[in-house]
Amino acid sequence: MSNRYRRSQSSIRKEDVRTLIQNIGKRVYKDLDSQIFPTLTLHTRSVKNLVYDPNLRQYVLGAATVTRSSQNIKQIRPFTQLIWLAYFTDKLVREGKTSTLRDVFYSAQAFEVEFSDQPESDDIITDLEVILSRAREDFNVYPEERSAIFGDLNIEYTVKGYEGRRLNLASHPDGYLIGPSLSTAEFIDTSAEIIIAVEKGGLFTRFVEEKVHERFKAIIIDTAGQPPRSTRYMLKRLNNELKLPVYVMTDGDIYGEHIAMVIISGSANAAHLRDLAVPTGKWIGVWGSDIIKYKLPSIPLTDIDIKRVHELKRDPRYSGGIWARELEVFLKIKKKSELEAFAKYGLTTIVDKYLPQKLEEAKSY
Amino acid sequence: MSNRYRRSQSSIRKEDVRTLIQNIGKRVYKDLDSQIFPTLTLHTRSVKNLVYDPNLRQYVLGAATVTRSSQNIKQIRPFTQLIWLAYFTDKLVREGKTSTLRDVFYSAQAFEVEFSDQPESDDIITDLEVILSRAREDFNVYPEERSAIFGDLNIEYTVKGYEGRRLNLASHPDGYLIGPSLSTAEFIDTSAEIIIAVEKGGLFTRFVEEKVHERFKAIIIDTAGQPPRSTRYMLKRLNNELKLPVYVMTDGDIYGEHIAMVIISGSANAAHLRDLAVPTGKWIGVWGSDIIKYKLPSIPLTDIDIKRVHELKRDPRYSGGIWARELEVFLKIKKKSELEAFAKYGLTTIVDKYLPQKLEEAKSY
Repeated sequence: MSNRYRRSQSSIRKEDVRTLIQNIGKRVYKDLDSQIFPTLTLHTRSVKNLVYDPNLRQYVLGAATVTRSSQNIKQIRPFTQLIWLAYFTDKLVREGKTSTLRDVFYSAQAFEVEFSDQPESDDIITDLEVILSRAREDFNVYPEERSAIFGDLNIEYTVKGYEGRRLNLASHPDGYLIGPSLSTAEFIDTSAEIIIAVEKGGLFTRFVEEKVHERFKAIIIDTAGQPPRSTRYMLKRLNNELKLPVYVMTDGDIYGEHIAMVIISGSANAAHLRDLAVPTGKWIGVWGSDIIKYKLPSIPLTDIDIKRVHELKRDPRYSGGIWARELEVFLKIKKKSELEAFAKYGLTTIVDKYLPQKLEEAKSY
Repeated sequence: MSNRYRRSQSSIRKEDVRTLIQNIGKRVYKDLDSQIFPTLTLHTRSVKNLVYDPNLRQYVLGAATVTRSSQNIKQIRPFTQLIWLAYFTDKLVREGKTSTLRDVFYSAQAFEVEFSDQPESDDIITDLEVILSRAREDFNVYPEERSAIFGDLNIEYTVKGYEGRRLNLASHPDGYLIGPSLSTAEFIDTSAEIIIAVEKGGLFTRFVEEKVHERFKAIIIDTAGQPPRSTRYMLKRLNNELKLPVYVMTDGDIYGEHIAMVIISGSANAAHLRDLAVPTGKWIGVWGSDIIKYKLPSIPLTDIDIKRVHELKRDPRYSGGIWARELEVFLKIKKKSELEAFAKYGLTTIVDKYLPQKLEEAKSY
């Protein structure tokens, strides 16, 4: 079955984000023309303004707002930083260049816009995300971390110098880095029917070697631990545009469970964004109950692990379903395990036995 | 200028390593036939047996050896572990499968060969490297970390299922992961004349965007910090087989200097291996003296940094040349800087100005 698909949404998004950025400038000029001090208003990101939306199945920002006025001596610093960042990112998008978070921090120095450290510039970048309701990747600011992808998906680049060129993502068995070019590529077609995201590079390689992409008609993603945002955005796009279900496979511990949760329901610190969660995604293991069922080698939970379970139990996203149930199992058995633990039963057992059983099981929840 | 090249050394290496592994087994059987307790002898890896070889320009193991005898109650554990590992890796190579370090630890459990933790199994893997004089990647054991490559190099895979397929490494602008498939691929041809290894993914992306591969006829490698061994092996192969010079670009601090040192002169804990150093490689910056010359934003050295400088000064690899000189500069100016600091002078300054100047300068040392 081929999943045909064609759309040019990437260039539309980029034009769109420039309009949004330029609207900030227009607002400032309008205030000046009206002889009032320019002001920017954005939703506040404080913990008090985080609201869990059970329909969206993710955290969103509440109604509280904060104002940055050029009239206020305390606010003029973040106000100026934000205006500069809008200028800088508009230029990035226009020129088709990307920047890292760290580059932004240093670039400001050329304009004598002061950031005392990178956390301060990262914070203003998030402010700009809130104002635009767009992820920083949309205005060409990327983190350094990368994860990888492999599978039968034909893509077409939209980045400068590569426009119109195509690539099949099964052609390099070590996997393709998910960077700016892949994030903005168009999806042309695929024979895949599911997406499997795995937490670890070692398992990713195992899946490629054991032809999971063919045997299960899957596109495989290595999240490299907690996935960077560009990877969550990629998962969302694969789910949304290709209509493929997403399955997440992690280590058998609460940190793995939380990686799956963030992919599926988003993170609290991205509550202002809507394009990073895959609410229909499914965590297929390794569950606490799998440690028992599959007699996996395990190690005891530490005090820190146990403290973390209790924290997660207070999180509304963990209030039901397998999320709540498996937290209880981890707490009861006081054990954790890893994906590699299946190697005890042979290197391919995880692919030959565990994966098909868990995919079958996933139909029922 | 096209650098034509053809050889099938990967499959030869794999056959070769199996012969070496099987020789261990033959030695054991021979001892048994002679009615003596089987014994293995290997060079000791203790610090006392590390010798700096100024000709090879890297640390090597000295003459001291250690014996693992099946007759000795204390030695029978590592002896058994080593024999099992030889069996396991021979099977890996035969079946064309790879394994992570972590997989090895768990796989042993199926055979009731006990490793109390992964450091213990990692240690035995290194013992096997010493006996065979081969890196673990040669017997298909890989770490999880990956770095990336980009540039005009045509390769041909040798891994199962991809034999004979070719790929041009400039076809995906986010870069290709350097995993088992690339490490074992044949190099077919390239128009590149140099290799540039950079410490950071952000700069790697910048280099691709600014077409460093075309402007400087370069293959670009992202080492992602201290490069994993498979990447050092890749650099060595590119240098050796394609006869291309290697330039290393790091942050402007002693940790960056040490990353360059390890690429060029190898690491102390790989003193038993010869295929991981590129003695003709050159560290082109960011030097301490560049911080002054290019007026880079910098931050003060910490007490820990200063302590580390004094440690490095006692290392014979740092006894002369730019290595010693730049250590002194860092110590004198008490400052460090980063590659991204060039962004103060515009995002492309590092490519337009710094890189060509440093490549020119490198001709003189």
